[in-house]
Amino acid sequence: MAYNLLKGKKGIIFGALNPDSIAWKVAERAYEEGATFTLTNTSVALRMGETAQLAEKTNSTLIAADATNVADLENLVKQSMEILGGKIDFVLHSIGMSPNVRKGRHYSDLDYNYLEKTLDISAISFHKVMQVCRKMDAINEWGSVIALSYVAAQRTFYGYNDMADAKALLESIARSFGYIYGRERNVRVNTVSQSPTQTTAGAGVKGMDRLMDFGERMSPLGNATGDECADYCITLFSDLTRKVTMQNLFHDGGFSSMGMSMRALEQYEKGLECDCDTDNGSCDHKFD
Amino acid sequence: MAYNLLKGKKGIIFGALNPDSIAWKVAERAYEEGATFTLTNTSVALRMGETAQLAEKTNSTLIAADATNVADLENLVKQSMEILGGKIDFVLHSIGMSPNVRKGRHYSDLDYNYLEKTLDISAISFHKVMQVCRKMDAINEWGSVIALSYVAAQRTFYGYNDMADAKALLESIARSFGYIYGRERNVRVNTVSQSPTQTTAGAGVKGMDRLMDFGERMSPLGNATGDECADYCITLFSDLTRKVTMQNLFHDGGFSSMGMSMRALEQYEKGLECDCDTDNGSCDHKFD
Amino acid sequence: MAYNLLKGKKGIIFGALNPDSIAWKVAERAYEEGATFTLTNTSVALRMGETAQLAEKTNSTLIAADATNVADLENLVKQSMEILGGKIDFVLHSIGMSPNVRKGRHYSDLDYNYLEKTLDISAISFHKVMQVCRKMDAINEWGSVIALSYVAAQRTFYGYNDMADAKALLESIARSFGYIYGRERNVRVNTVSQSPTQTTAGAGVKGMDRLMDFGERMSPLGNATGDECADYCITLFSDLTRKVTMQNLFHDGGFSSMGMSMRALEQYEKGLECDCDTDNGSCDHKFD
Amino acid sequence: MAYNLLKGKKGIIFGALNPDSIAWKVAERAYEEGATFTLTNTSVALRMGETAQLAEKTNSTLIAADATNVADLENLVKQSMEILGGKIDFVLHSIGMSPNVRKGRHYSDLDYNYLEKTLDISAISFHKVMQVCRKMDAINEWGSVIALSYVAAQRTFYGYNDMADAKALLESIARSFGYIYGRERNVRVNTVSQSPTQTTAGAGVKGMDRLMDFGERMSPLGNATGDECADYCITLFSDLTRKVTMQNLFHDGGFSSMGMSMRALEQYEKGLECDCDTDNGSCDHKFD
Repeated sequence: MAYNLLKGKKGIIFGALNPDSIAWKVAERAYEEGATFTLTNTSVALRMGETAQLAEKTNSTLIAADATNVADLENLVKQSMEILGGKIDFVLHSIGMSPNVRKGRHYSDLDYNYLEKTLDISAISFHKVMQVCRKMDAINEWGSVIALSYVAAQRTFYGYNDMADAKALLESIARSFGYIYGRERNVRVNTVSQSPTQTTAGAGVKGMDRLMDFGERMSPLGNATGDECADYCITLFSDLTRKVTMQNLFHDGGFSSMGMSMRALEQYEKGLECDCDTDNGSCDHKFD
Repeated sequence: MAYNLLKGKKGIIFGALNPDSIAWKVAERAYEEGATFTLTNTSVALRMGETAQLAEKTNSTLIAADATNVADLENLVKQSMEILGGKIDFVLHSIGMSPNVRKGRHYSDLDYNYLEKTLDISAISFHKVMQVCRKMDAINEWGSVIALSYVAAQRTFYGYNDMADAKALLESIARSFGYIYGRERNVRVNTVSQSPTQTTAGAGVKGMDRLMDFGERMSPLGNATGDECADYCITLFSDLTRKVTMQNLFHDGGFSSMGMSMRALEQYEKGLECDCDTDNGSCDHKFD
Repeated sequence: MAYNLLKGKKGIIFGALNPDSIAWKVAERAYEEGATFTLTNTSVALRMGETAQLAEKTNSTLIAADATNVADLENLVKQSMEILGGKIDFVLHSIGMSPNVRKGRHYSDLDYNYLEKTLDISAISFHKVMQVCRKMDAINEWGSVIALSYVAAQRTFYGYNDMADAKALLESIARSFGYIYGRERNVRVNTVSQSPTQTTAGAGVKGMDRLMDFGERMSPLGNATGDECADYCITLFSDLTRKVTMQNLFHDGGFSSMGMSMRALEQYEKGLECDCDTDNGSCDHKFD
Repeated sequence: MAYNLLKGKKGIIFGALNPDSIAWKVAERAYEEGATFTLTNTSVALRMGETAQLAEKTNSTLIAADATNVADLENLVKQSMEILGGKIDFVLHSIGMSPNVRKGRHYSDLDYNYLEKTLDISAISFHKVMQVCRKMDAINEWGSVIALSYVAAQRTFYGYNDMADAKALLESIARSFGYIYGRERNVRVNTVSQSPTQTTAGAGVKGMDRLMDFGERMSPLGNATGDECADYCITLFSDLTRKVTMQNLFHDGGFSSMGMSMRALEQYEKGLECDCDTDNGSCDHKFD
């Protein structure tokens, strides 16, 4: 169902790779709600992914840009304003990648060049996007900027590795830049801390299936899906949330406010009960 | 501007007294967005206030209820379902009052009977509303319940007195009941932590004017108004935020994430500079 | 091992019932560190419990007081100053009880008279203790006041019921009164949020064993014991922590900062694996 | 006064430059409490500063190391264990520097090479220290690692610039590594979030004087001094705080839990009152 919440609004959406991507779903919903926008990803991702189909479906233009590259971002913003016919109203940053995770480097054996890349791609790119937009005065008054985050920024999740630190940095950047951009241009900046979601990006995280099961049972409303996340982002881009800024907004079915649920505890108890007879290898320290 | 976000939805709105009330503005906006609802307040408030005009304007029925009285609440919920023709989809709890504040009792000289009243009216009433609704199975799946809160639940504000404790209790009740109601009926429960707002209820708080000035200069987007709060509540009642629950959501122009802004610091600095010549009484300890 | 950290310091310790009580352990450690103090509990608890032995062991006087009764508290504070020969330096509040938990009332079926008692005993009593102390000017400059709390104040734990709300209120009172008492007398007020601990008080909480197992596996350092909690409280009563105030201090082996540990996830996974063959009753909804 | 709290303990202290440094004061107090340790700083700092005097005073050895350089850290840890005669028990990381702040780059005009340096020096160095220690198995069971932080990690302070993001990253690293190091070696890792302190490092921050005045009036106990911070760190290195880990511990006289104090509001009000006649330049936007 559509409400025309973004009628006449212009935007830039980073990070749509395939239909599983949250950015993909946000693009679809933004289109339904009346927005026009450009789509962007790295040139490699654009070649590999299916973003062209999304562009066609949503009547939007694809612009290749490496979000860690200021010149690329300047070109992206410039072109976007030309194509869309003016300043933009919203930005979605859905970008994250850790070479340490990909290469299986344990958090206590990080490669520091990789860490630099993790932070640059997953967090500093968000600063670069906003710094470029501000210098080019590319965002309208009361515009809305969102980056996607995860609760690992607050609490440690086994296997999430240096992405946790990247998300903490990302959320700090949202606050720091949100202050500047709010004060000067009434632009709001927030992060949405989303449930674990089955995307291509999430696939590398250790124990993802179990984490999703745990989240499903811990959260009174279950994990939030990518489609639901898209709906939520629409409200945050709309004119109805103009005074929400510098916040990290949990969109997670209640997970972040749970200590222990009945359902998760029952499942956990089963593990205790069958402790005796399931020494079938699941307990060796293969997970580290 | 209206979007039909609440088309077909039914609700109960507590706490509309006069056009300054946030609940009043929420009712107006909910009406514009297609909702039907009942309005409720204490019988004294209904006699004194202008709620009848709001009821007429929004085609809604007024039902007197003391929100601390379970029997009143049962009657309210029963009547609401009859009038609205079925279960409800949203509830707004905008209720707060401290006899200690009203009677000028300092936080270190509380009257404990008054404190009990503060907590009952401002926090426990929220539990009562939800317990009654749940027992009567009065809220539809994916319904949304909101109570209004204030950042004093997290940080101490001079003069806010035992209302700070009431808000902390209120937010805890939102989490505790949110877990139960989510797990069982997919009903979400959140608090909106709103900027200080010039309402009749806010008038009793010491130093309100200065606090609002401080908030205005600290918050990059300025204080959020009651109208903006109403807009935000609409999004939280809509189907676009179904997986947000057990959260305290700051709607405050960024205040809660600020430590010190340029504008507030400049104002503060002026106070330092003119320290010498303004010993005109503002500094004696009349505020305590 | 003792360090003379509390040499010459005087205190009042609430809530020692038997050797499992955290307050009991704090008393023992405070005695070792050179403090003198009075012990207090309700007259019923003093008759039933073994506190007299603790008093003998630590050379201290037992004074019966109902912590919800202001007159009792006034008598306690007056007598304590007489016995100890002057103002006091530290207070431990280790009091909590929920009639709703005891009587098996579900959180969505609370008895509101019981809730009032839960809040009065477990939270408001803390305000009463401080209000009485302040009115009688009973605490020395740089004194230290601690109440014991639990992470359920921040996140919902199945079965913890209205004690969660009481702890949230308790922590708010610590902040609110900490501001007043700090500003006026340089007295600091904090809460220590302790791991679940096997005490008589904890025994009523549903699923306590499983929660403790979960805590043990989630926390990188395991659950904190009562003895360790006593050590920690000693540091907070000492002169080395004078500028720590209005804080909720987690003493929990890291639990509060964990989202998911390897060890807990492995245990959880076992529950998933043996899901098929353990439908032996552990899954019916007896836990609610 | 000394308590022998660190008798027999060995440590490494980073960041003592001159007697204003918090690390300097921690070294003095650790020495009084019976610890032996090595002192380290960059070779430039060691040449410029007065650390040699501290080394003499505390009977400790100076070892030059760039904390961003893994080889330097390996050498430091190796030498420290040789000099101290075994594994170490505590580490203090008191390192922070932002080239963007130094060069006056505004947060919306960051130099990204500088930002990389800010993060490397002020946050990632903490990871490097721990990764090197763990690989060399250099820390005893129940050892304690502390880094100094600031509340700008949670809330935005005008002028604190990219150091806010560095502190957020630092605190995340403390959690992430605290999980690993706790699980494997029972080593605890925390950050101490200290009041603004007049040190050489703090001197570059804009509006430092006013911020300190604001902190002094907001905090019920006033700003925490460097000496008090040293006392606090001693308790965290001692055996009395073994189960405190993955925490950010505010040592700030209550500042972090304040929204607005009477004293700060009075000062602020003066600024409002004399608004008319102090348009003497303090209000132009020279602060940005």
